[in-house]
Amino acid sequence: MVVERRKPISIGEAVVRVLQYPLQLEVEHVHIGTSLDRILAEDVVADHDVPPFDRSPYDGFALRAEDTRHASTDSPVTLEVIEEIGAGQVAKQKIEAGQAIRIMTGAAIPEGATAVSMFEVVKETKRDTKATIELKRSFKEGQNIAKQGEDTEEGSMLIQKGTIITPGVIAILSTFGYSNVSVWRKPRIGIYATGTELLDIDEPLQPGKIRNSNAYMIAAQIRNMGGEPVYLGKLADDFQTCFEAVKSSIEVYDALITTGGVSVGDFDYLPDIYQELGARTLFNKIAMRPGSVTTVAELNGKLLFGLSGNPSACFVGGELLVRPFILKSMQSNPFLAKTRATLSKDFPKPNPFTRLVRSQVNYSPKGVYVTPTGLDKSSSVTAIAEADAFIILPGGTRGFMAGDEVDVMLFSKESSSNPWEV
Amino acid sequence: MVVERRKPISIGEAVVRVLQYPLQLEVEHVHIGTSLDRILAEDVVADHDVPPFDRSPYDGFALRAEDTRHASTDSPVTLEVIEEIGAGQVAKQKIEAGQAIRIMTGAAIPEGATAVSMFEVVKETKRDTKATIELKRSFKEGQNIAKQGEDTEEGSMLIQKGTIITPGVIAILSTFGYSNVSVWRKPRIGIYATGTELLDIDEPLQPGKIRNSNAYMIAAQIRNMGGEPVYLGKLADDFQTCFEAVKSSIEVYDALITTGGVSVGDFDYLPDIYQELGARTLFNKIAMRPGSVTTVAELNGKLLFGLSGNPSACFVGGELLVRPFILKSMQSNPFLAKTRATLSKDFPKPNPFTRLVRSQVNYSPKGVYVTPTGLDKSSSVTAIAEADAFIILPGGTRGFMAGDEVDVMLFSKESSSNPWEV
Repeated sequence: MVVERRKPISIGEAVVRVLQYPLQLEVEHVHIGTSLDRILAEDVVADHDVPPFDRSPYDGFALRAEDTRHASTDSPVTLEVIEEIGAGQVAKQKIEAGQAIRIMTGAAIPEGATAVSMFEVVKETKRDTKATIELKRSFKEGQNIAKQGEDTEEGSMLIQKGTIITPGVIAILSTFGYSNVSVWRKPRIGIYATGTELLDIDEPLQPGKIRNSNAYMIAAQIRNMGGEPVYLGKLADDFQTCFEAVKSSIEVYDALITTGGVSVGDFDYLPDIYQELGARTLFNKIAMRPGSVTTVAELNGKLLFGLSGNPSACFVGGELLVRPFILKSMQSNPFLAKTRATLSKDFPKPNPFTRLVRSQVNYSPKGVYVTPTGLDKSSSVTAIAEADAFIILPGGTRGFMAGDEVDVMLFSKESSSNPWEV
Repeated sequence: MVVERRKPISIGEAVVRVLQYPLQLEVEHVHIGTSLDRILAEDVVADHDVPPFDRSPYDGFALRAEDTRHASTDSPVTLEVIEEIGAGQVAKQKIEAGQAIRIMTGAAIPEGATAVSMFEVVKETKRDTKATIELKRSFKEGQNIAKQGEDTEEGSMLIQKGTIITPGVIAILSTFGYSNVSVWRKPRIGIYATGTELLDIDEPLQPGKIRNSNAYMIAAQIRNMGGEPVYLGKLADDFQTCFEAVKSSIEVYDALITTGGVSVGDFDYLPDIYQELGARTLFNKIAMRPGSVTTVAELNGKLLFGLSGNPSACFVGGELLVRPFILKSMQSNPFLAKTRATLSKDFPKPNPFTRLVRSQVNYSPKGVYVTPTGLDKSSSVTAIAEADAFIILPGGTRGFMAGDEVDVMLFSKESSSNPWEV
């Protein structure tokens, strides 16, 4: 048997090739109450001024500034309180000379008023049977009045399309009346797990077999990316079965992911399937560990992701390639954010290829630290579960020591910048 | 009118008081496919060894190490290939002296084999009509064999209860057969928005009124925290209406949140409602900005959160108090993580109380930077939407300058450490 020689390309080049085939997604409308984590497909524009009217930022008294012009400690001014309004109420009367209206935070400034005095600087009094207030200081025109439109003018662009809908975005959407929100349809990504060795999760173990863990993992990754994963089942290592499955499902879904079957073993059929389908292989080897056999092919503009059957390599392929592919068509931050952190343990392995090390970030008062989660063999099973970041160790380097500064990709932070050199 | 004097307590003290009333949650079971982001209510234990059997980590040939003892470049050893097995297959034959079995990555080591040779160091030959291989080097017993249980032994504790279910956790759950996962029931949190000034999102604007933005925002925050928000509607500023609504719903939900009505204005009825209900007020003033009027009361062990009607203050109250309250009963990281970052713009305001500044974190190759999002008045409407962190400026400090190191709380990173001093 001849071992196929594949030519590795850089991670950056692989990302560039994948991004040449953007998803074709339509806009759909969802109620604001179910819009969390969806991605805006239209700009959000102010449908009114903020504040929408001149309003009081304090509990106090609305008055005419000119009435207080001569007020002082020695010569206080007395005003008659003619009405009281809370937020949401509109005064029935206009303020005339010598009058004031008791007003609560957020209420509209009554007609005739040009300033607001806070409770704290007012003495409430009575004259005859009338409620009055006594003021020992003067107010300027417009003092303590939040002017209509001072925060935002009607028509202003508030949030750009491509933004993920967070609780803060929902506050803006509600303020401006977006009860139905335009979002991108979630891309539907089909998933097959390949390998005769795979058992379903609820099957008992059998000799030589292991349970299928990649399919549910990559489905969860896709859900986190804003896609809609559709698990299509597992496929035994049989060319014809796999071929038919791949051929029929790539027509139905926006993209197809398979796990396993992309290496150079005798039962790794995916490369042959891509060829038989007439798909164009974008690459079949990336200069990275794990996941170097990750393969992507294109058929009629749709992508077929052949991820490794090794769980860590499958995870890496999902975050590095499927993530920007899914997100680039919808939003402005399709990449995981890269930052620097201090390595907290030695990592002695040499790195012939760029190495992605599953690791955990710790934010301490002294700065950002990062620890590989899979250093000891005993924890390698749980290394993916404990990780919230990759350490990126460049290819061609030797081991790194505790205290070294390293590049880190954060799972929980998205970024607009492509972290890879091309 | 006498302005009520309230005694402010520290944020840390407020958190401690809230955490004295843990939620009473039961365990429920969900299918692994819908378990993403839920919180484990039982430890995950290995139901089998990993690897579950001795297996080959490479594509190659399984053989008897002793047969290769004298192999060298000058004197290669020839073995007969008697069978081929892929992953998931079990060899039908036992390897005897002078024999080998072609084996693929992940397949079980055949009986009789004590080592595996990779393809790359083997020459495939034929002798008569039989497939054979030629080896020019020796192998040690156990070489290139992944031993049963070397990664994880059956019965090992893998993931502790209280862990959020991420894609990596799902990989572990599937590997170990957890097709149904024990998770905590989501706490059901009732939400009322109070204020006569509030309009529904789809109502046209009216004089003196604004749209209700807090309810949908806090609902989304609660969803992010793993709770189940139930929006109960808005309430006008009327004591009896509010009283009846609060009284009946606190019996139904695990906790109740109201927005607005907790200040000292004439229509701020929540403090009186707590009193009339016989609820015990845990605090009604916190030494923080925004959100100093945030009030929490307790009735029959259930908490009533009176958050401010100001959107920023409402958001802060949710993240600082409701978050640890909801999460503490379910998981091990109930707080937002605190770290240090470099301020990228001057923040000139003095800070009589601890100030939480909505801000955006930027991870650059030089380190972590943070920028307030609401500095200019024009952007104050969108400041919450753009923020992914709070800057924490301690009370009693004056303005901070660009380049200063400041404490930051990250919205996207949870932590087990209480960030507040008590």
